[in-house]
Amino acid sequence: MSSIIYFDNAATTPLANEVLEVMLPFMKENFGNPSSSYSAGRTARLGVEVARKKVAQLLGVTPTTIFFTSGGTESNNTAIAAAVRDLGCTHIITSPIEHHAVLHTVEHYSHHNNITFSLVALTENGEVDYKDLEQQLQAQTQAGKKVLVSLMHANNEIGTLLEMSHVGKLCRQHNAIFHSDCVQTVGHYPLNLSEAGVHFISGAGHKFHGPKGVGLLYVSNEIKINPLLYGGGQERNMRAGTENTYGIVGFARALEMAMEAFEKESQYINQLKQYMKAKLTAAIPGVGFNSPDHSLYTVLSVCIPQSPKTDSLLLELDMAGICVSSGSACSTGEASHVMKALRKDNNSTTIRFSFSKFNTQGEIDVVVTKLKELLS
Amino acid sequence: MSSIIYFDNAATTPLANEVLEVMLPFMKENFGNPSSSYSAGRTARLGVEVARKKVAQLLGVTPTTIFFTSGGTESNNTAIAAAVRDLGCTHIITSPIEHHAVLHTVEHYSHHNNITFSLVALTENGEVDYKDLEQQLQAQTQAGKKVLVSLMHANNEIGTLLEMSHVGKLCRQHNAIFHSDCVQTVGHYPLNLSEAGVHFISGAGHKFHGPKGVGLLYVSNEIKINPLLYGGGQERNMRAGTENTYGIVGFARALEMAMEAFEKESQYINQLKQYMKAKLTAAIPGVGFNSPDHSLYTVLSVCIPQSPKTDSLLLELDMAGICVSSGSACSTGEASHVMKALRKDNNSTTIRFSFSKFNTQGEIDVVVTKLKELLS
Ligand SMILES: Cc1ncc(COP(=O)(O)O)c(C=O)c1O
Ligand SMILES: Cc1ncc(COP(=O)(O)O)c(C=O)c1O
Repeated sequence: MSSIIYFDNAATTPLANEVLEVMLPFMKENFGNPSSSYSAGRTARLGVEVARKKVAQLLGVTPTTIFFTSGGTESNNTAIAAAVRDLGCTHIITSPIEHHAVLHTVEHYSHHNNITFSLVALTENGEVDYKDLEQQLQAQTQAGKKVLVSLMHANNEIGTLLEMSHVGKLCRQHNAIFHSDCVQTVGHYPLNLSEAGVHFISGAGHKFHGPKGVGLLYVSNEIKINPLLYGGGQERNMRAGTENTYGIVGFARALEMAMEAFEKESQYINQLKQYMKAKLTAAIPGVGFNSPDHSLYTVLSVCIPQSPKTDSLLLELDMAGICVSSGSACSTGEASHVMKALRKDNNSTTIRFSFSKFNTQGEIDVVVTKLKELLS
Repeated sequence: MSSIIYFDNAATTPLANEVLEVMLPFMKENFGNPSSSYSAGRTARLGVEVARKKVAQLLGVTPTTIFFTSGGTESNNTAIAAAVRDLGCTHIITSPIEHHAVLHTVEHYSHHNNITFSLVALTENGEVDYKDLEQQLQAQTQAGKKVLVSLMHANNEIGTLLEMSHVGKLCRQHNAIFHSDCVQTVGHYPLNLSEAGVHFISGAGHKFHGPKGVGLLYVSNEIKINPLLYGGGQERNMRAGTENTYGIVGFARALEMAMEAFEKESQYINQLKQYMKAKLTAAIPGVGFNSPDHSLYTVLSVCIPQSPKTDSLLLELDMAGICVSSGSACSTGEASHVMKALRKDNNSTTIRFSFSKFNTQGEIDVVVTKLKELLS
């Protein structure tokens, strides 16, 4: 796969060698069960707890707020289930462009628990309309509802960003619970959760050169919730199941690396994005961008005027060894719910390019040249 | 950790080198998201689907019945939640010696869904009293209840075995749903699920030299259930979340290796168990065995008459580099719920030895000598 150009880092990222390196000892000699009391168990336990401490430190919170799960999806499910079941939330405010791991979960729990939900209005850019959010919060709390606000920190398809602290403040004012799906931002931005006013966030290792099969759930110390998975007393009774030790250790190392290199890497990646934007603008007449100017630096969502030539564009890019997506990885084929919500599903073809530190300007040149060739 | 003697394979097992070998390519070059439609995604998808087919074949079922989860705990939770929520079960029959991943889940769903549950009687050996099971099934179905039977295939602390086909037949006769926690037997016995009359089974990779963080849920084709985790359409809409590709590929390889070598390895391990039993009987006056004669060949649960010398036995074994457990890994410290249910929590100290193909008679000699020394 050495000859491919991988511009789909919002779907998943290559595991960093340095991360694999810290995982391997836990896949080999340190194979013990962290719940076992003998030396081999304690070594594994230490690995998990050092990882938790590291992650907590990097997110500006105490280790008791950090729980490891199997991924972003499980974290989202846990937070939403807990808000409804344990925290008494009877109305959920979310957005039409959340990931399905939020939207479908909200639909499920609202359906099965007789609670209501509503969608916040979005600006033309796809950003949350904060005035509308405030009005909805007001109306619902005045109607006697306890509200859960679940809004993603960055959208995975177009890269719109949420002002987390502002939403945190609004939620506090209305005694609402605030969950933020940070799967696209954990490992991509420095987050100080103790200042964000957020009660829950979700993250996933594989989105920032960490391992698949491991996720993060932050649960503020202010709230007490029950687990989603019942069983052994792992994760302080909050997430049962033998710990994925190498996943956890890898998650922490990947986050550490990402935060240490944040300034440099985010600048580098943002330059790639701006470079591509300029190149595309010059090369493709009528090209537009779904990502607002101030957006997730890893994602560039491009819309290309529809023509017979755009029909098989992704397929032809694939045949040229170029990996990009039409939206998110989870909705191959039809226009995504995000594009539909943003009314960007008509008369244009969307391509999401998403970058990592492993990409280069040279790759962008190749892709833009190829695109130009395919479209002309 | 080269000098330790690891006799706690029921807690977790070392990952086999051959398993790590097939995982590594998916941790390196084949890092794609299986939901992505381009080449790198398809390679990952192929890995997952080949694994699914392999696992299905080895279990005697079709690939459409095999779902990959994050572990045995999630599989147990999914099966029990689905039986209650989707299949209309209003009474659960389980046993007092199930793993907490079953017991706590049953408690949770019965509490929150207004359903009842009862515990099946056990024989003196700790085996299920099938007459009692039949009577309970009869009584509950006559009372108009739809029943879920959740009984483990092998107990993780004392190794008692369930006659799965017999229970399957009883359940069919009473139109009951049958879930079996097979976490201790998947990869340790050849299972032919299409003949077992079971609707759900759970397995966990790390119990048979496969990876942590990956589990198996078998769902019979006869039933239709909803997922426990909502989100993307992975696992045919049955288990959302980006697939743990290396975990899944490793799970299948570990199962394949285990089944290929089943005859030889099970015999070898059983010989170790019998050898240890004989050695202990000769060396330690008053020693007894909690595992019945016909039991899981990997587990030998030993009870040693209580004395001041048994107080710190596990600690001293640990200091000698010997890894054993007092019960299961998940209940370090006090007497386990299993031992309490079997009334084996008094006047004796329990040690569970559990073996794998990597253990040797020489290790048993060392451990028995050490035990004798510590107790005399
Ligand atoms: C914003 C967002 N939330 C949640 C998820 C789900 O994460 P995972 O598939 O790792 O469970 C993803 C990734 O697919 C995502 O981009
Ligand atoms: C019988 C049994 N069921 C379920 C589990 C839970 O499996 P896991 O911890 O891998 O989720 C275990 C192992 O701890 C077990 O022995």
